[in-house]
Amino acid sequence: MENVTPEYKECIIEGRNAVIEAFRSGREIDRVYILDGCKDGPILTVKRQAAKKNTQIRYVTKERLDQLSETGRHQGVIASVAAYGYAQVEDMLALAEKKGEAPFLILLDNIEDPHNLGAVIRTANLAGAHGVIIPKNRAVGLTAVVARTSAGALNYTPVARVTNLAKTMEELKKKGLWFVCADMDGTRMYDLNLTGPIGLVIGSEGEGVGRLVKETCDLVAAIPMKGEIDSLNASVAAGVMAYEIVRQRSL
Amino acid sequence: MENVTPEYKECIIEGRNAVIEAFRSGREIDRVYILDGCKDGPILTVKRQAAKKNTQIRYVTKERLDQLSETGRHQGVIASVAAYGYAQVEDMLALAEKKGEAPFLILLDNIEDPHNLGAVIRTANLAGAHGVIIPKNRAVGLTAVVARTSAGALNYTPVARVTNLAKTMEELKKKGLWFVCADMDGTRMYDLNLTGPIGLVIGSEGEGVGRLVKETCDLVAAIPMKGEIDSLNASVAAGVMAYEIVRQRSL
Repeated sequence: MENVTPEYKECIIEGRNAVIEAFRSGREIDRVYILDGCKDGPILTVKRQAAKKNTQIRYVTKERLDQLSETGRHQGVIASVAAYGYAQVEDMLALAEKKGEAPFLILLDNIEDPHNLGAVIRTANLAGAHGVIIPKNRAVGLTAVVARTSAGALNYTPVARVTNLAKTMEELKKKGLWFVCADMDGTRMYDLNLTGPIGLVIGSEGEGVGRLVKETCDLVAAIPMKGEIDSLNASVAAGVMAYEIVRQRSL
Repeated sequence: MENVTPEYKECIIEGRNAVIEAFRSGREIDRVYILDGCKDGPILTVKRQAAKKNTQIRYVTKERLDQLSETGRHQGVIASVAAYGYAQVEDMLALAEKKGEAPFLILLDNIEDPHNLGAVIRTANLAGAHGVIIPKNRAVGLTAVVARTSAGALNYTPVARVTNLAKTMEELKKKGLWFVCADMDGTRMYDLNLTGPIGLVIGSEGEGVGRLVKETCDLVAAIPMKGEIDSLNASVAAGVMAYEIVRQRSL
C-alpha cells in the first residue's frame, strides 16, 4: 500500500453543530470562542461540553468572531483545534474489518470544490462507507469549509490522500476490492451487482472520471438521466450511487 | 388551486455552461458580455449561439465582468436576461400529462440556501420530476446563484412559489397526488411504495419538515442512516429520495 504521510495543520471549526459534534467525537479542542451574551440551547451545550473537558472558553465580540471566521458563518461559536489529520487507507480496511463489514470506500477524482468534498464525507458517514480517498494533486485540503459542510462527519469518517489514485486502486484490488465509477455511458446502476467489497469512484462535474482511473474500474455505472441537462451535482451523484450500494447491501 | 402571481426580475446568468444552456433552451437573452481576447471552445460556442439569435455581444475587461458578477464565478462570460419567472403548479401537472407520466413534484419546506435550491432543481430535471414547489415565506428567489448551481436546469424545470405549502398539498391531493416526506422517524424508503402520482417533500437540514406539512403527508420515508452524524445535506437527501422514486417507477 502506498505510504501516505498524515498532515496536521492548525484549523478552526465554525458553527454550532460542527463544534458540538467535534466535542462529542472526543476531538482535542484547544479553545472555544463564544459570542458574548449568547445563551441559547446549542451554545449552552457547547459550554457544558467545554466545562466537562476543561476546555478554555473565551467570550468575544461579533467583530472578533468575524475576524477569526474563515467561512463567515460561525453562528456565534468557533473552536480552534489541532486540525484534521489524514488517515491511511489501511485504517479504512481495519475499520471495515472491525465492524465485520465488506469494505466500502468512496474515491473522488478531480473534485476541487470544498463544499462537494464536505458533502461527500457527510454522505460517506451516513451511508456506512469506511473512508474517503482523494488524490493529492489538485485536491482541496481538509479546511474549515470542508469540516463545516461535512457537518461533523470529518470527526468520524477517515479521509486519506494518495499520490496516484489508479495505483491505490490496483493495490486495493489485490486485497479483494473492486471498483465502480459513475459515468453516463455505463450500465444502469440498478442492473449491476454492487454488493461485496467495493470502491465507488466519483469524478468532477465538468471532466468526469480521469481516463486511467476509469480504465482501472471494473464496472461503469450510469445514474438514469431523464432531463435536458448533462449531469448531477457531484455530491448528489455520490449520494445517489452510495445509496444504491446501501440498498443492494441490505437486500 | 392557489393563485400564484409569476414574478419577473432583471437577472444575469454567469459561467460558460449556464450561458450555453440558456441559449440552447431558447431563453430570451438581452446581451452577452465576454472577456476580451477569450476564445476557447465554450466561448466560441457562446459566440455562435449569440450570432444565430442576433444577440448583442460586448467584449469587456475582467474588471467589468467582476463588477457585473453576482457570484464571482463568471468564467469570462455573463448573459443578461429577462429573469426566470415562476411557473404555476398547473403547468407542472400539464407537463406530466403531456409526457404521459404520473405527476412527480418536489416540494421544499424551509430551504433557504440558494446552492441547495439550485442543486435540487438540477436533480429534479435529471430525475424526471415535473416541477419544484417552494413556499413564499423565507424562500430564496431564483437568483443568479440558483441559476448557476442548477447548471441550466432552471431553463427546463418549472419552479412555483406558493403562499401555503400545506394548502397546496391538500389541493393537489384532490387531483390524485399523494405526498411522502423524508424524515428520520419514517419507514425505510425501500419498504414503501413510491410509485404513482407523487409529491416528494424535503425539509431543511436543521429543522426538517414543518409540523403541518408533515401531518399533510401520506407517508414518512426514512433514508437509512448508518453513521454517527444526524442528517444528509438537503440536496443530497433530495437526490437519494428522488432516485428511489425513479428506481421504483422503472421496475
